[in-house]
Amino acid sequence: MNIKPLHADIIAVGSELLLGGPVDSNSVFVANFLAECGIEVRKKISVGDQKADIQEALRGSLKRAHVIVLTGGLGSTLDDCTREAVAETFGCPLIKRKRAYENLKACYRRFGRPVTPLLAKQAFLPSGARMLGNTVGTAPGFLMRDGQSVIVVLPGVPREAKVMMISQVQPVLRKIFNSNRHYWLHAFHTFGLPETDVQKQLSPILKDVGRIQFGLLASPRGVTVTVSCWVLSGSRSFVKEKSPFFPEWVHLVNQVRECLRPGLFAEGERTMEEIVGEVLRGRSWTIAVAESCTGGLVAHRLTTVPGSSCYVDRGVVSYSNKAKRELVGVPASTLGRYGAVSSQVAMAMAKGIRMRSRVDVGVGVTGIAGPGGGTVEKPVGLVYAAIDGPHGTQARRWQFWGDRTEITLKTSQAVLDLIRRYANEVSP
Amino acid sequence: MNIKPLHADIIAVGSELLLGGPVDSNSVFVANFLAECGIEVRKKISVGDQKADIQEALRGSLKRAHVIVLTGGLGSTLDDCTREAVAETFGCPLIKRKRAYENLKACYRRFGRPVTPLLAKQAFLPSGARMLGNTVGTAPGFLMRDGQSVIVVLPGVPREAKVMMISQVQPVLRKIFNSNRHYWLHAFHTFGLPETDVQKQLSPILKDVGRIQFGLLASPRGVTVTVSCWVLSGSRSFVKEKSPFFPEWVHLVNQVRECLRPGLFAEGERTMEEIVGEVLRGRSWTIAVAESCTGGLVAHRLTTVPGSSCYVDRGVVSYSNKAKRELVGVPASTLGRYGAVSSQVAMAMAKGIRMRSRVDVGVGVTGIAGPGGGTVEKPVGLVYAAIDGPHGTQARRWQFWGDRTEITLKTSQAVLDLIRRYANEVSP
Repeated sequence: MNIKPLHADIIAVGSELLLGGPVDSNSVFVANFLAECGIEVRKKISVGDQKADIQEALRGSLKRAHVIVLTGGLGSTLDDCTREAVAETFGCPLIKRKRAYENLKACYRRFGRPVTPLLAKQAFLPSGARMLGNTVGTAPGFLMRDGQSVIVVLPGVPREAKVMMISQVQPVLRKIFNSNRHYWLHAFHTFGLPETDVQKQLSPILKDVGRIQFGLLASPRGVTVTVSCWVLSGSRSFVKEKSPFFPEWVHLVNQVRECLRPGLFAEGERTMEEIVGEVLRGRSWTIAVAESCTGGLVAHRLTTVPGSSCYVDRGVVSYSNKAKRELVGVPASTLGRYGAVSSQVAMAMAKGIRMRSRVDVGVGVTGIAGPGGGTVEKPVGLVYAAIDGPHGTQARRWQFWGDRTEITLKTSQAVLDLIRRYANEVSP
Repeated sequence: MNIKPLHADIIAVGSELLLGGPVDSNSVFVANFLAECGIEVRKKISVGDQKADIQEALRGSLKRAHVIVLTGGLGSTLDDCTREAVAETFGCPLIKRKRAYENLKACYRRFGRPVTPLLAKQAFLPSGARMLGNTVGTAPGFLMRDGQSVIVVLPGVPREAKVMMISQVQPVLRKIFNSNRHYWLHAFHTFGLPETDVQKQLSPILKDVGRIQFGLLASPRGVTVTVSCWVLSGSRSFVKEKSPFFPEWVHLVNQVRECLRPGLFAEGERTMEEIVGEVLRGRSWTIAVAESCTGGLVAHRLTTVPGSSCYVDRGVVSYSNKAKRELVGVPASTLGRYGAVSSQVAMAMAKGIRMRSRVDVGVGVTGIAGPGGGTVEKPVGLVYAAIDGPHGTQARRWQFWGDRTEITLKTSQAVLDLIRRYANEVSP
């Protein structure tokens, strides 16, 4: 059975995307929403707010893409011209839409502002286009068809584009293409294994994977391995028709999981901080963290998890030696004898915060984040961490590389992984 | 005098860029480095690790771009095929380069690994290409010319691409194009002004700006306004030849600055945390922060600035009520009477941490980051902050919107801005 390929291009419009400014992040969720409709993104393009450039990109994509999603440039500022660029490409005049105009009036009334001619241009759409109402903002989007292609135009504001995509674009695309293709993706997140080792461990499996694709991505948070595949389902019985393929997929996912076991901390969308929260909850343990070089990043990451107030008691950033003595009771003699960046001080911090806050687990981190402060004996990137709890005390030493941001991010990840492993250990 | 336009396209290669994974961030610094050579990026493209897609993008760009920079897909994994795609496009066979191979051997020797045939493919470059040596990694890049176009191929690892761009690509591009175009960009960062207000304030200036471009970007960190322009300089006397244009630019930049004054906290590359550090240093003040809903983010952001150990004494994350009592001495009666999220508790936190750590400035933050924990009276996004120091005590109340991440980021920015304004006040 042939898997009919449905391809999409995403064109992000905005001069700020081309220089200095942020990169186009809308395309991430747009691509995911398209995948849910069986449509694969093959190209992402960013162009400035210039009509000629938008049109050139659009014409290029019309040659091969079934779906073209444009985002941005629908607002009311002078440089916004996506609406005009698309209308001209298809030779459709822009016509004022009553419903869009009423929505604009209602929106601006809330801010106590009238709809000036400049603002009103948001209510103009190419003739024949299907309006995509904006329930959370001002500018509507729109959808057009041209031969085999569907052109979707969304506002650049992520929240507005997301709502429009889910409530209006996905249903239309499903109806038009009636796709029986589905995208399967499984991600494995590892920490502590170098990229080359991960690759080496996977190489026996990688030899014969057929139409399944592998991806490898290294970042300060660790190495992520993705396994992905487009699969076919019958419209009547998805489970039944995909079953011939199922064993192959399940087998491979299990094989990869086994391979990566030593460093695997999470799968799918889950993050290290969520996993740590889960194991702490599982133990009914509370935790307190004393940080130096990470400056609060470990505590912050722990508390990004909704509901973390159940297990996070407190964090202290004992940046100065004075704070280390006062907040967690590190003896002045220990600081003097071993220096602030030492395994002894990390242990004193862990024990100190555990005792003072009467939690189950205390954690201490001290190191040199750079760029200054390094010496030959204690270079930038040297980090000591310790954990003190029901399973006793453990200390670790790491040497990280990178700039200040990278070193603190790697350190926070290593410390969270240390907590995870500690809490996962069988009780002594 | 005509400003000859030099255009570049950037093609980022990597299937992970198309779905779920990270967005292409290399293009940001590549675009900046090109601007320094008088070359303007007009289009950014991301494609997967598929030869046909890379070639299609490359052929499209060859039609109009003077410079095409490809990044990624030069590694040794099976899916890396940028090298092959480029070589085939120009009909140049891949040839093993001795110098590249020697560098590979030296690199892998450090990891104690031999250069397998798969790894060795990194040493093959298209015949006739100029090799760009990799001094910080394994895969070399390369540079080719085709008619009017220069094609630059860089590794996907940001650190490697950056070094190559600065030390090898920029000099070559300057030599080839001998451009007398320069890019001027000035960014103004504001906080506390809604985007519509910023636009309104700027509208009288926006009317007649000639070839100067404006950009407006709203994020949880505030609204950034950019003013940019391509200007021409003579090769002999840059200062002299650009002077006719200079007054216009200077005037506009000053006008924008005046307009944005009420919310302006930084210009150029500077961040809120750097500015806060600077004003604290200027006052010779030390600071300590007690955080609840932000979970350490304020302290972490303060300490991301190199040298912040001079003024940051400590931070505490008093997440639980117990921690609020113990770490900063918030009276149980205050907690009971007003609730943890109240102006009274924020003030008690600020005063408590200031007294206990004997610093000049104490800061307290308490709020509801969500998604749970909100009530009708105290909804998600409600935040109280207080600052206590030589200028007395100040408290603020905010109602933020967004998800947990957005609310904590906005809160941290608002708190840093509060510290900045407090320290900038004239002493009473």
